[in-house]
Amino acid sequence: MTRWSPDGRRRLQDAALQLFEERGYSETTVAAVAEHAGLTERTFFRHFNDKKEVLFDENRLGELVAAETRASDASTAVEMAADGFRAVAAQLQLEPARVRRRALVIAASPELQERELLKITEWTAAVTRALEAERVEPRAARIAAEVSTAIFRIAYGIWLEATDPMNLVATLDALLEVLRSVLVTVPRGSDAVGARGTSSQG
Amino acid sequence: MTRWSPDGRRRLQDAALQLFEERGYSETTVAAVAEHAGLTERTFFRHFNDKKEVLFDENRLGELVAAETRASDASTAVEMAADGFRAVAAQLQLEPARVRRRALVIAASPELQERELLKITEWTAAVTRALEAERVEPRAARIAAEVSTAIFRIAYGIWLEATDPMNLVATLDALLEVLRSVLVTVPRGSDAVGARGTSSQG
Repeated sequence: MTRWSPDGRRRLQDAALQLFEERGYSETTVAAVAEHAGLTERTFFRHFNDKKEVLFDENRLGELVAAETRASDASTAVEMAADGFRAVAAQLQLEPARVRRRALVIAASPELQERELLKITEWTAAVTRALEAERVEPRAARIAAEVSTAIFRIAYGIWLEATDPMNLVATLDALLEVLRSVLVTVPRGSDAVGARGTSSQG
Repeated sequence: MTRWSPDGRRRLQDAALQLFEERGYSETTVAAVAEHAGLTERTFFRHFNDKKEVLFDENRLGELVAAETRASDASTAVEMAADGFRAVAAQLQLEPARVRRRALVIAASPELQERELLKITEWTAAVTRALEAERVEPRAARIAAEVSTAIFRIAYGIWLEATDPMNLVATLDALLEVLRSVLVTVPRGSDAVGARGTSSQG
């Protein structure tokens, strides 16, 4: 059963991450990844549909975000979806160094960026379905899913680029607070008191 | 001065839309588009950087959304950005049949979809900058821009797929209303009274 073990999957992911970093994504073959992991190409394709997929454990994260959205007992639709993304954030927060290495590999390849965009679109769809399953009105479900996805992406971007250690879940929570604020006010920078009144744009 | 006229630009766009519909985007050359418009290939490239660009008047829309965001005197950051997107919506609403034809051509080509995604990302960046120029706090500007972009995209999608005539600006306004609702409550479908209490998911 060794070739089916989660350990094999993880070894392939580790090998891929390392080779993509060293040689670049395009320059690395599936055969090289499998060999580096001490496994066969055939085993690789038992775990992953294609070379890109080895970097994306997001099918699992997609299931997680949907399950946690459904399980949420939050009092607003956005908060339900946010509970889904909090679970994903907590997961990523477990291995910050690895997540950042992976992000750099993706950032270096338009092909991988495209796949990442597609995965995120799938998360949004999964969250929409999860909210609908909890009887949220369809348009509201879609909007809550899209908005919480956008907030998650911004939080993730800020977290990836942070030079000091930073907690992804806390960043997400802070941005959800900002989201509430942008819907009830115009949050000005501290030096902006009265600035709009003197603007010639109005 | 004929070859510089806006009329030339429009003729090229009309020719491209027609040929892309008839032959497909990949199968249509720039030379064919220029010839169909009664202009030269050189003139085409005076107006557009590449073949894709002839379908995207979005540079102008990107300027419009930013200018209208800055000019807005709305009382929330999201409403300021929404005023920008209302201007774009009003523009698209002027030629619904043409906008729908264009959307079908884009939907048929992954290359064009990619360009459209890129353009939308540029709008979001332009709205963020516009809000920052109005002294909105940077994180709040980014979030208001992303959220209003998401709402615009959903409204645009609903409007494109509507079988009955529908007003895009009104659709956008309705979704902004839903956005406010998903942040303060869980908007359930009408058949959902008490549904969560009986769910086995919690």
